[in-house]
Amino acid sequence: MAELLSIILAAGEGTRMKSALPKVLHPVGGLPIIGHVVRAAREAGSSKIAVVTGPKHDTIRTAITALDGDVVHFEQSVARGTGHAAAQARDLFDGHDGYIAVVYGDHPLLRGGNFSAVLDRLDAGLDVAILGFEPKDPTGYGRFITDGEHLLAIREHKDASEDERAIGLCNACILAFRAEVFRDLIDRIDTNNAQGEYYLTDLVGLANKAGKKVGFGVAPENDVMGVNDRSQLARAEALFQEVRREDVLKAGVTLRDPSSVWFSWDTEIGRDVTIFPNVVFGPGVKIGDNVEIRAFCDIEDAVIGEGSSIGPFARIRGGAELGPDVHLGNFVEVKKSKIGAGTKAGHLSYLGDAEIGTKTNIGAGTITCNYDGVNKDKTIIGDNVFIGSNASLVAPLTIGNGAYTASGSVITEDVPADALAVGRARQENKPGYAPKLKERALAKKAAKGK
Amino acid sequence: MAELLSIILAAGEGTRMKSALPKVLHPVGGLPIIGHVVRAAREAGSSKIAVVTGPKHDTIRTAITALDGDVVHFEQSVARGTGHAAAQARDLFDGHDGYIAVVYGDHPLLRGGNFSAVLDRLDAGLDVAILGFEPKDPTGYGRFITDGEHLLAIREHKDASEDERAIGLCNACILAFRAEVFRDLIDRIDTNNAQGEYYLTDLVGLANKAGKKVGFGVAPENDVMGVNDRSQLARAEALFQEVRREDVLKAGVTLRDPSSVWFSWDTEIGRDVTIFPNVVFGPGVKIGDNVEIRAFCDIEDAVIGEGSSIGPFARIRGGAELGPDVHLGNFVEVKKSKIGAGTKAGHLSYLGDAEIGTKTNIGAGTITCNYDGVNKDKTIIGDNVFIGSNASLVAPLTIGNGAYTASGSVITEDVPADALAVGRARQENKPGYAPKLKERALAKKAAKGK
Amino acid sequence: MAELLSIILAAGEGTRMKSALPKVLHPVGGLPIIGHVVRAAREAGSSKIAVVTGPKHDTIRTAITALDGDVVHFEQSVARGTGHAAAQARDLFDGHDGYIAVVYGDHPLLRGGNFSAVLDRLDAGLDVAILGFEPKDPTGYGRFITDGEHLLAIREHKDASEDERAIGLCNACILAFRAEVFRDLIDRIDTNNAQGEYYLTDLVGLANKAGKKVGFGVAPENDVMGVNDRSQLARAEALFQEVRREDVLKAGVTLRDPSSVWFSWDTEIGRDVTIFPNVVFGPGVKIGDNVEIRAFCDIEDAVIGEGSSIGPFARIRGGAELGPDVHLGNFVEVKKSKIGAGTKAGHLSYLGDAEIGTKTNIGAGTITCNYDGVNKDKTIIGDNVFIGSNASLVAPLTIGNGAYTASGSVITEDVPADALAVGRARQENKPGYAPKLKERALAKKAAKGK
Repeated sequence: MAELLSIILAAGEGTRMKSALPKVLHPVGGLPIIGHVVRAAREAGSSKIAVVTGPKHDTIRTAITALDGDVVHFEQSVARGTGHAAAQARDLFDGHDGYIAVVYGDHPLLRGGNFSAVLDRLDAGLDVAILGFEPKDPTGYGRFITDGEHLLAIREHKDASEDERAIGLCNACILAFRAEVFRDLIDRIDTNNAQGEYYLTDLVGLANKAGKKVGFGVAPENDVMGVNDRSQLARAEALFQEVRREDVLKAGVTLRDPSSVWFSWDTEIGRDVTIFPNVVFGPGVKIGDNVEIRAFCDIEDAVIGEGSSIGPFARIRGGAELGPDVHLGNFVEVKKSKIGAGTKAGHLSYLGDAEIGTKTNIGAGTITCNYDGVNKDKTIIGDNVFIGSNASLVAPLTIGNGAYTASGSVITEDVPADALAVGRARQENKPGYAPKLKERALAKKAAKGK
Repeated sequence: MAELLSIILAAGEGTRMKSALPKVLHPVGGLPIIGHVVRAAREAGSSKIAVVTGPKHDTIRTAITALDGDVVHFEQSVARGTGHAAAQARDLFDGHDGYIAVVYGDHPLLRGGNFSAVLDRLDAGLDVAILGFEPKDPTGYGRFITDGEHLLAIREHKDASEDERAIGLCNACILAFRAEVFRDLIDRIDTNNAQGEYYLTDLVGLANKAGKKVGFGVAPENDVMGVNDRSQLARAEALFQEVRREDVLKAGVTLRDPSSVWFSWDTEIGRDVTIFPNVVFGPGVKIGDNVEIRAFCDIEDAVIGEGSSIGPFARIRGGAELGPDVHLGNFVEVKKSKIGAGTKAGHLSYLGDAEIGTKTNIGAGTITCNYDGVNKDKTIIGDNVFIGSNASLVAPLTIGNGAYTASGSVITEDVPADALAVGRARQENKPGYAPKLKERALAKKAAKGK
Repeated sequence: MAELLSIILAAGEGTRMKSALPKVLHPVGGLPIIGHVVRAAREAGSSKIAVVTGPKHDTIRTAITALDGDVVHFEQSVARGTGHAAAQARDLFDGHDGYIAVVYGDHPLLRGGNFSAVLDRLDAGLDVAILGFEPKDPTGYGRFITDGEHLLAIREHKDASEDERAIGLCNACILAFRAEVFRDLIDRIDTNNAQGEYYLTDLVGLANKAGKKVGFGVAPENDVMGVNDRSQLARAEALFQEVRREDVLKAGVTLRDPSSVWFSWDTEIGRDVTIFPNVVFGPGVKIGDNVEIRAFCDIEDAVIGEGSSIGPFARIRGGAELGPDVHLGNFVEVKKSKIGAGTKAGHLSYLGDAEIGTKTNIGAGTITCNYDGVNKDKTIIGDNVFIGSNASLVAPLTIGNGAYTASGSVITEDVPADALAVGRARQENKPGYAPKLKERALAKKAAKGK
C-alpha cells in the first residue's frame, strides 16, 4: 500500500448532544470518540494524521495530544462544510505522495479494516474509493449513485430526489483518494447546494467529470455508526461493550453476567479470571491470571497481580499496583499505593499514598491519614506487619517489618520493626451509669418537645 | 371540554400479587400505582377525583392523601363488581355536570392523553366512549363488539363466544360518559352473568338499548397495561424506566448504560450530567447541571448542586442538600445534611444531621455521632475547616470557620474558629514486643485446639 | 419405574474453556455444573449414581463429595471416548437390575423431567431410549437417524453425510437402557470412526442390530444446552437466572428489575419480599417474609429474619444469622455473627464473629476487632445495648445488657450490664493554632517543590 495520510474532520459542534463538551470528546469505552478514530487511522497504517477542529476546540487538541504525540492539528475558523474543513490540512497534504483518507471524526466504532475496504480499491487501480454501508434506515444519509462498481455521485439527503432516496447504499465516513487526484480536485468544490456549503462528497462527481476511476467499499453498519446525540452515544457504548465482552469470554474469562461488566478500551485481563456481576473498569487496568473480582467493584488506573481476590465493593484507582495474591475486601479503597504479595485489607479501609510490604494484615477500618490540607504524605508499611483494626495511620509514617499496632490506635510516629505501637486511651467503666444517660437523653427530648 | 369527574376504582384485592399490600400501592418508578392513575386523571383536567377502595384499605387512602390533598374517598364494603364499585361515588357524581370518566386503578403507565382519546369522542357528540386497545394476546380481556365506529357491547372473556374471542380490540381501562347518561344507567346494571357481579362494562349495552351514541377511543398497549401479578409489576417498571431513560438522554444527559440507571417518577436532572452504570434514584431527587455521578450510587430525597461530583459508592438521602462543586466519594453516606459549595468528603464517612460550610475538607473515615439513643443532634461545621481523618464528631457540636481537628480525634466539645482541636491518646512504642504478642496468640490457639 | 442407575460422564478436559479448572466444576447459579447434573439424576429417582472423571480430576471428586455423599467415583485413565468412559463404571452396573441412564456431565440446566422423557419410553416397553432435541443450529451435534418412532442410529456430525446433516433432531445428553441390554452391548463398541474413539452413541446401532427396540424422547433446547466455552457458560447462567427470577416473581416477591438480581441455585425467599436492583445472592441464603433488600447488596451463606431491612450496600456472609426486624444499612458487613430481633447497624460497620442481642444499637463506624493475627475471637453484646459511633470493640469481649459505650471509644475490657464504658482521650483546643498548621504545611510543600 502507498503511504497513507488521514485527515480526520472534527470541526462540527454537535449541537444535538446538548453539551458544552465538543461531540468528539464524549467518551466511548473510556476513550474520547476522536481517540477511537485516531487509533483506527493508525491501525490502518497512516504515517501522518491531521485533525481539523473548530475555532474553540483547544480541548480536542489537548485530548489528542495526550493520547498520541504525532497528530498535526488544523483549525477551520468558519464552518463552511466538510470540503472546506478537509482543505485546511493543506500544509500536510500538499507535500504528500500516496493515498489520502478523509474521515469523519464522530465514528467511535471505526476499525483499521474499514479503511482497508477502500484503500484496497485504490491498490486495485481506482483513483477514488468511498466507504459505504447499508443502514436499516437510510433517512438523512448521502446516497450512493452507482453504475455497477462505479460510483457516479453521492447525493446528500436534502438534495436527493424521491427515487434517489430509495437507494439503500449510503455514504459512511471514509473517503479515500490518490493524493494527486485529491489535491487536484479539492479546490474545485463549489457551494451550489441546499446548504450553501462546500460538500466533501462533491469530490465524487468532480472526479467522475475529470475521467477518474471512482468506486466504493462497504462496511458493516455497526462499524460506521456516527454519534449525534446521547441516545446514539449510549448505543455506541453498548455496541462497544458487546464486542469487548465477547473478546474477553473467548480469551478464557468468566463473566457471570456479561451485560453487567463494563470495560474500557484498554482493559487487559489474564486467563482464568472470574468477574462477578456489576464491575466497572475505567481506563488503565491490567488484571493478572487467576484473579477473582467479586460484585460491585470500580477499578481504574490499576495493576492487579495474579491470584488476587478483589471485592465485593472495592474501589481501586490512581496508579495502584497490587502484587500477587493480594486480598482487598468490602468497602476498601486503594489509591496510588503499592501493595505487596499476600497482603490483605479486608474491610472498610482507605489506603492512599501507601507502600505496603508482603504478607501484611491491614485491620478493618484502617485509614491512612495522608492529607494535611495541603500535602499528600506517604505511609510506608513493611512485611508481616499487623495493623490492628480501626487504626489511624498519620502520614508521613513508616512502620517496620513485623511490627504490630494495637486496635483503635492513632499512629503518629514511626514504629520500629517488631515493635508494638499503642496509641489509645485506657477504658474506664462507670457502673450503673447507662440508665442515667438514657434518662438524661429522654429529658432532653422532652425539653425539645416543649 | 366539559368539567370532568374521574372515578378511580381501587377496591380489588389483587390476590395474584400474593401480597399483604393492596395491589394499587405497589410502586412503579417509586410512586404507588394509584398515584400514577391520580396523576394521569389530573393531567387530563379532572376537577374532581373519586377513589373507591375496599373496606380495609385505609393504607390506600393514607397514601393518596399524602400525594394529593383533593381526592374524595369512597368505600365499597362488599366486593360486588366494578359497576357496584363505581356507584359508591354517588355523593360526588350526583351533583356533577359534564363528563364522568371511570378508570381502573391498577394501570401505572396511564397518561392524560389516554383520557383525551375518549373525552374527545364525547366532545365530538358521543354520549359514551370507552378506551380500547389491541393487545398482542387478548386472552382474558373484555372484547369490543363493534359496528363501524359504534360500540355495541363489551363482552367479558368468560362470557364470550368463540367468535367473539377472536376479536382483537379489547377493553382497556377508561369508560367515559356524559354525566346525565352515567347517572341514568348506573342503577340499571344487573348481575346476569357468569360471575354474578355488577359489570361496569354492561353500561355499554344499556346505553345502546337507551338509544345513546356509544363509541370508543384507542390507546397504545403499553400505556394501558394493567398490573395483576409481580411479573406484570416488573414489566410495568421496565416500561416506565425505558420511557424515562429516553427522555433523559434527549435532554442532554449521558447515561453510559441506560439500562443500569433507575429513575423515580419525579427525578429532575440538569444538562450535561454524566451518569455511570448502576445508579438508583429514589423519589425526591434534583440534580444540577454538569454533575457527574459515578457508578454504584443510591440517591433519594436530595438536591445536588451544579458541578458536583458524586461517588462511586455514595449514598445520599433524607433531605440532603448539596451546594455546587461538592465532592462525595466512595463509601460516603449523607443524611439530612446541608453541605456548602466546594466542600469534599471523599472516603468512608457518615454525615448525618450536619450543616457544613464551604470549602471544608472532611477527612476519610469521619463519623458524625449524631444519635445518643434517643435524640438526633446536629453537627455544625464552618467554612474552610479541615476535619482530620477518622474523626468522631460527637453532636451536638459546632466547629468554627478555619478550624482544624487532628486525625483520629474524638471531638466532643465545640471548636472555636481557627483553633486546632486534638482528642487522641499519645502513642507509645514497645520495642521488640510484637513477636511476643504473636507467640501469645499462637499459644492461645494451641490451647483452644486442645 | 425400575431401579435407576445413572452414570455421569465428566472425564472431558474442556479445553475450549481455557481454564485450569475442569469444565464441569465451573459454577452456574453458584453450583458446579456437575452438581446440577447430580441433582437432576437424583430428582429423576436414581438410586445409584456413578461419576466418571479423568485421571487428574480429584477436584471434581472433592466437589461432588461435598455436595452429595452417595456418589461412586470412577476414573477413566486414558481419553478413549464416551463409550470407554461409561464402561469404567462396570463395578456398579455389573450388579445392577433395572435401568441405566448415561448422562453427559456438562449440562447444567438438566432436570429430572428430561430423564423421564426417556425412562418413560423404557417403561413403555423399549429396550433403549435416547434423549433428543431440535437445536436452532444443529451443526456439531450427532443426528438421529429415525424411522417413525424407531431410532436406527446416531450419526456423529463428523461422520454424517450431507443428507444426514440436514436432519434437525439431534442427540442431547441422556442415553437410557435396560441394564441387561447395556451390559450386553457396551463391550461391542469399536473404534471404526473418524476419531478412532469408542462412541457411546454406537450403542444405538448395536442395539438395533441385536433386534432390540430403540426409540427416543425429546427435550426443550434450553434444558439440554451443553457448556463448552465461557460464552456458553454465560448463556447457561443467563437461562438459569431467567427461570429462577420468574419463579421468584410467581411466589410473590417484588423484583424492581429482575435482570439485575442474581440468585443462587438454593436461594430461599419468603413472601412479600422486595428486592431492589443490583442484588447478588451467593449460595446458602434464606430470606424471611416481608424483608426489604435495597440496592447493591451481596449476600451469601446467611439467614435473614422476617421484617428485616437490608442495605443499600450491605454485605452479609459466613453463616450470618439475623433475627426478625434487624436493620443493616449502608457499608455494613456482617460475617459469621448472630444478630437479635430489632437490632440495628446502620452505617459503615464491620461485625465479625459477634453475638448481639435484641434491640441493640450499633453506632456508625463500629468495628469488631476480632482478629489478633492468629485467632478470631468473639464479641458478645447483650440486649438494649448502645454502642456509640466509631467504636473499636476489641475481642474477646462481652458487653452486658443495657450497657452504653461512649462514641469513639476503644473497648478492650468487658462492660457490665448497665455500665457506661468510655475509652477515649479528652479533647484539647489550641486557639489560633490552625492557621499556623496551614502555614507549616504550605512551607513543607514549598520545600518539596525545590
